[in-house]
Amino acid sequence: MRDDPQRLRFEIDARDGAARTGVIHTAHGPIETPTFIPLATKGTVRGLESGEVAELGYQLILGNTYHLFVSPGPERIEAAGGLHGFMGWERALITDSGGFQVFSLAHGGVANEVKGSGRGGGGGTEVEISEEGARFRSPRDGRELFISPEVSMSVQAAIGSDIALVFDECTPFHAERDYTARSTERTHRWLDRCLRWHDAEGPTRQAVFGIVQGGTYEDLRRESAQAVSEAAVDGLAIGGTLGRDKEEMAAVLAMTAPLLPVDAPKHLLGIGEVDDLLGGIGLGLDVFDCVVPTRLARHGVALAPSPETRWRLDLRKGRWVGDRAPLVEGCPCPACTRHDRDYLSYLSRAEELTAVRLVVLHNLVYMRELTDHARAAIRAGRFDAYRAAVLAGAPPWSA
Amino acid sequence: MRDDPQRLRFEIDARDGAARTGVIHTAHGPIETPTFIPLATKGTVRGLESGEVAELGYQLILGNTYHLFVSPGPERIEAAGGLHGFMGWERALITDSGGFQVFSLAHGGVANEVKGSGRGGGGGTEVEISEEGARFRSPRDGRELFISPEVSMSVQAAIGSDIALVFDECTPFHAERDYTARSTERTHRWLDRCLRWHDAEGPTRQAVFGIVQGGTYEDLRRESAQAVSEAAVDGLAIGGTLGRDKEEMAAVLAMTAPLLPVDAPKHLLGIGEVDDLLGGIGLGLDVFDCVVPTRLARHGVALAPSPETRWRLDLRKGRWVGDRAPLVEGCPCPACTRHDRDYLSYLSRAEELTAVRLVVLHNLVYMRELTDHARAAIRAGRFDAYRAAVLAGAPPWSA
Repeated sequence: MRDDPQRLRFEIDARDGAARTGVIHTAHGPIETPTFIPLATKGTVRGLESGEVAELGYQLILGNTYHLFVSPGPERIEAAGGLHGFMGWERALITDSGGFQVFSLAHGGVANEVKGSGRGGGGGTEVEISEEGARFRSPRDGRELFISPEVSMSVQAAIGSDIALVFDECTPFHAERDYTARSTERTHRWLDRCLRWHDAEGPTRQAVFGIVQGGTYEDLRRESAQAVSEAAVDGLAIGGTLGRDKEEMAAVLAMTAPLLPVDAPKHLLGIGEVDDLLGGIGLGLDVFDCVVPTRLARHGVALAPSPETRWRLDLRKGRWVGDRAPLVEGCPCPACTRHDRDYLSYLSRAEELTAVRLVVLHNLVYMRELTDHARAAIRAGRFDAYRAAVLAGAPPWSA
Repeated sequence: MRDDPQRLRFEIDARDGAARTGVIHTAHGPIETPTFIPLATKGTVRGLESGEVAELGYQLILGNTYHLFVSPGPERIEAAGGLHGFMGWERALITDSGGFQVFSLAHGGVANEVKGSGRGGGGGTEVEISEEGARFRSPRDGRELFISPEVSMSVQAAIGSDIALVFDECTPFHAERDYTARSTERTHRWLDRCLRWHDAEGPTRQAVFGIVQGGTYEDLRRESAQAVSEAAVDGLAIGGTLGRDKEEMAAVLAMTAPLLPVDAPKHLLGIGEVDDLLGGIGLGLDVFDCVVPTRLARHGVALAPSPETRWRLDLRKGRWVGDRAPLVEGCPCPACTRHDRDYLSYLSRAEELTAVRLVVLHNLVYMRELTDHARAAIRAGRFDAYRAAVLAGAPPWSA
């Protein structure tokens, strides 16, 4: 681990078992943890203007290097003063490395697996992976693109994120042990290349998080945790497959989390459903990004305190016609305070933009409430009770 | 004309030539005129929550009876307390009669014509027009629907608009004089049926506007203006084709407007481009609805002070890459105060919802500024100078 407060400083201010609250100080302000990170995949959080995301209370958003690399490209972003300037976001920004998307193209289905659907297989011939990096065709215009540890770091430097993630190979669940072992070793060599490039040419105030791989294998996760911890990183992320379903994911996380240095800021990549996020907080993880809250909104699915439906309320179902109750009783978001299920359901089925936006707002308020109240519970030494209540169906603000 | 202040009261408070400012008092509050009316076609202004439309300063929105009749249907809206309750809109609401859309299906192209493109012709076999009304198939699920003067008024009663429009046949430009004459006479018979139904069964606080038809024929417009003025209506609207292009439209309006009772509130249906709206204001017309500002936004086209491009700035063009200027210098909207053309152009080309929303906000702020400053100019006795400045390319707030 590296210790450079100019780049990043992490203060833990309360503990409750392994769970903790803290503040990550970045070049663009503080991030209170644990926190959920909304995705600004292509330089905007779906349907929201940057100022609105800050008004919701979020202090950190995530830009996707792969998408921004493909369009509008690092030159245009850099010319606008980085992604902060380009999209008018003044708070902290983290970028992934692009690895996840590139290797999803190559292996197929990683995204589905780590979210627990257990599917996978397939795999594209469109991506050529070598020790040097990955070569692929732009899905936008077909031109050949190449991404390597150095390219990823240079794109993230152009984007100007406060926290960059190293370029790793995101191995899928269906990969065999041998492949996972070799891939994990390569990820470590790529980690070194990322840090070398960043030391020489990276922005001085940009922090770098290493990524722990190793699939579902305890020994590989242990080796990876050790290799990444010994490198000059400012924090750690847990990447790669976490298994075929939620049970296996919980087991892999329970096995991996304790292997990481306790005082480091820790990012669980791509995970952010209500139960998984609470599980991660309980294991001492600090930041969580996930496409689910904003992606669900596009399809009219709102977060709600119903464990039996995985906290999802599908507004496009016919059953909400005439229902005068708010989407979720007690929720402070504009969808819930100003409208009823009948209208929101109508708007969603009519595929009105207003519906997508209102459900995005609702889902992001829901996640904010969940992490706000989780922090309060940790400070009060009652996180286990809080988690149990939410898992039993209490809304995040009243558990 | 009828005079029932319980339904509608119109006070003219300043005059400048034929132009005037005033206040229409409705059951849901005042409407300062001249004003532009944003369309809430299917029960929402594109991408905006009802509270936001009020925050923009709008006091009146328009719901489309045809669309709301097809879905979600009058029963569901009535059960929600009318469209006010359904969509959470607390200010004044006007509904069209559905005639325009039904007869556009029948005749084809009316929408294009009255906006000046001069196309037309075609015409569908899907609508069966008779003295009784119009029979057509739902574009949503194919079921047969029937709309007549009585049905239109009953749907508008269920919607609970503050101002209902009578059911008329919207004759297209390509209709011959004989057809237009017979159609105009039918529109007058339908006017009587609308008023009869409304007297017997309409909401007591709902005002009714009659529609003056007659196409481009002065004698027919004169007959129609007289017939509508003599009926017990609370205001008048100018409907139907206004010709094949902007010049002809200006001529038809200049000929028609003086035929209407001077003290009545007057609605110019479906017209709201910058120059046309100023033309209408100059002729003493008071309210203007138009789909253009919100429809353009969907395609990344923003309103801007450039008469040579019909006040349109197309963000999807490549020329805005790297342009650090705001969309329109001096505009107080969130798109212009927080972002530059480079970013807005990128978002529009990426077809992000955020782009549509930001351009909707910009276009509605632009129209609000135009009518706010037109009112101030009328009060100051300088409307002609104001209009000339805007037509010469001044932004609405600095002309």
